[in-house]
Formats: sequence, structure tokens, C-alpha cells
Amino acid sequence: MELKDIFPVWEQLTPIQQTKLTESAVRRSVKKGTVLHRGSADCIGLLLVQQGQLRAYMMSEEGRQITLYRLFEFDICLFSASCMMNSLQVDVFIEAEKDTRLWVIPAEVYKKVMEASAPLSNYTNEIMAARFSDVMWLMEQVMWKSFDRRLADFLLEERALEGTDTLKLTHEAIGNHLGNPREVVTRMLRYFQNEGMVQLSRGTVEITDMAKLAELAGHGKR
Amino acid sequence: MELKDIFPVWEQLTPIQQTKLTESAVRRSVKKGTVLHRGSADCIGLLLVQQGQLRAYMMSEEGRQITLYRLFEFDICLFSASCMMNSLQVDVFIEAEKDTRLWVIPAEVYKKVMEASAPLSNYTNEIMAARFSDVMWLMEQVMWKSFDRRLADFLLEERALEGTDTLKLTHEAIGNHLGNPREVVTRMLRYFQNEGMVQLSRGTVEITDMAKLAELAGHGKR
Repeated sequence: MELKDIFPVWEQLTPIQQTKLTESAVRRSVKKGTVLHRGSADCIGLLLVQQGQLRAYMMSEEGRQITLYRLFEFDICLFSASCMMNSLQVDVFIEAEKDTRLWVIPAEVYKKVMEASAPLSNYTNEIMAARFSDVMWLMEQVMWKSFDRRLADFLLEERALEGTDTLKLTHEAIGNHLGNPREVVTRMLRYFQNEGMVQLSRGTVEITDMAKLAELAGHGKR
Repeated sequence: MELKDIFPVWEQLTPIQQTKLTESAVRRSVKKGTVLHRGSADCIGLLLVQQGQLRAYMMSEEGRQITLYRLFEFDICLFSASCMMNSLQVDVFIEAEKDTRLWVIPAEVYKKVMEASAPLSNYTNEIMAARFSDVMWLMEQVMWKSFDRRLADFLLEERALEGTDTLKLTHEAIGNHLGNPREVVTRMLRYFQNEGMVQLSRGTVEITDMAKLAELAGHGKR
């Protein structure tokens, strides 16, 4: 997989612009758990996922977290290059959720090409709009949706991502995804267990009644 | 005030592009309380505020609201033209908080110019990045900040906007700004009153101890 496979507007760039991006791009392989970007503390550049899975999250001063969205194969992360836009002031953290291979394009190189190329600039706009839409959706969830529905939704999403009913997740990890304290997660999972929807054991949540969980998450209503 | 005064990149557009935008722009005057844009129900175009004040907010299925940000003189609203980007799927509502004069540029006209113009596209990117940053900030507030601090913050912001200590605001209106039910607002305002920070009367909140309110909002710590 090459850069041209990731950027749909590649053919609309000039040869010089293509060369600039290609020559500046650095391949990296990171282990699961690696934190690639820490809010406003760095500006490492655009991340282009070749293989693996990244997680974008927000963190409070006290260390509480909430997952904003995931990045998969072919996805591009702009927020690790937020210094390329004056108005982009977001404290997003990025970590590898699985072993991940990616390219890094330095922010200043990307910025220069984007400033001269309407196609790349418009494409960047679309990426940002997509992430913005993700965050607005999450905001709606957090504001208006009860925690039991959000937790049910999250477990079903994890099941789909991992392809198994047996999820290796601590209650603290779930809390870090959903932005809730561990105790709140534990209490709700125990309720789910009493209702026969999950089976809990150390570090594992096993989904035992997917239909009931999906009903709680309100999937039928969509 | 003309379009060229609002767009800092105006001089970098071609004369044809300038004419396209100018000829398609429609002047509108709307009364306080007018809802200009209703989520995904319409795509009226870009709004450029000439004079007045707009409020962008989110609304739940049950009609609960939360203010995302305000738009003032010279500000541009993209979300009323979200159909110009495929990936922009946000259900934002826009209403006039004061009598407002504005321009409306049809989404398809703006889109065409933006697709051909790197400067306009990059500028649009900056606008979106700024709104994104606003929403991320708000998300942090909602996730990690207690309601008493958010309410104190809001009252101080209103005071600055209106230039008076006597704010004409119902408890329901405050709830619609902050995304909380009216009863929660009433309870907290009564606590503020007991603490001597505000004086309540029908439809009015009078700030009586700004220093104490600012301390609660944590302004000293910034």
C-alpha cells in the first residue's frame, strides 16, 4: 500500500506535490498501547493508518478519558498535526489499540501542499468534517442518552470490531472509553449480568444475550 | 459592510469568483427568536453575520437544547450549508438571539468556488477548525466540569455580552443554553442566591457578587 492508495485526490496533485509528500513521509510501526500524540504537547504530523487500529480520546486534568473515535486502515488523523491550522485547538490524544503500521507526514510539509492545492485542501476539509460529525454524534450521546444504552452500544461495537463474544476489557478500560468512573461501569455491568445479557469474570465481559443487549441499545429503533 | 470585508481571502479570489459570490448573496434581516436553520431539515446556505447575534445549538428528540457557540459580526456559519460537504453530518440549529442582519450565500455556489480556490478552501478549513475547537471545549466542560462552575461561567459570559448585571433570562432559557433541565437550573440559582452571588426575580437574574461568581467559575486559575 502506498500514499497514492490512501489519498483519493492523489492524481489531482502535481508531480512536485506528490514527490514532496512521498519523500517527507516516514513509515512507523508501533506496538499496541503506544501513545502517539499527547494533546497540545506535540505536533508530530498527519498519521495515515496502513494496518492496525488507533484510538482518539480526550483526557481530563484528573486523567479521566473518553474515546472520541477510532482510526482504521486508510484513515487519516489530522489532530496530531493541529499546528498546521491556526484555529485548530483541540487536546486530542492518540494511542495504538492494536499493533499498527502507519505513515507520518510532517505538518509543515502537508500544510504547504494543502495551501497550494484546492483538491487536497477540499479533501482535508472532508476529513475534518467527518471527525467533527463523529464528535457531534458523541456529544449527543453523552448529553441525551442514558448510560445503560451507551454501555450496551459500546459492548456491541466491541463485539463487531473484535469478532468475538468474549471481550477482554477491564471495567476501567470501559470507563476510559465512555468517560465514566470505573465504579459506575461495574455497577451497570452487574445489572446487565443479573438481566442475563453478559457474564463477568476477571478482565473479561462475555456477551450472553446479544438480542437483549441490542434492544437495550435501541438498535431496533434506528 | 460588504462581502469583501468579511472574507479575509477576498483579494485572492479571481474576479469571476468574486462576482459569483457577490451576485448569489442575499441580504436578510431577521427578528430576534427567528430559527434560521433546523438541523438536517434544510441547507439554506452560508450565513455571514453583518450585525446582531446568532446562536448555534443542538436539540434532543425530546426538545432539550444545549448552546454550542454564538456567532457575532463578521462570523461565518458553515453548518447551515452542510450539504456542501459529504462528510458533514451535524444536526445543528441556528437562531437569532438578537435582531440580525446577514448575508446568505447558497451552498452550491460556495461549494463550486471553494472547489476551485485553494485560498477559499483553506479559509473554510480554518472556520471549521475554529468551530470544532469550540465544540471540543464544550465537550470537555460537559464531561469534566461540575454544573455550578458551568453556570457561574455562563452568567459571567452573559454579563459581558449584554453589558449589564441584570440579565433577562428565564431558568428554562438558561437550561437550554447549558443542556440541563429547568429544575436543575432553579436549584443551583437558589443556592447562588443563598450564597449572595445573585438576586432572583421573575425572568431576571441579577449578579450581586461578581468576584465570588468568578472565583467559583475558576477564572482566577486560568
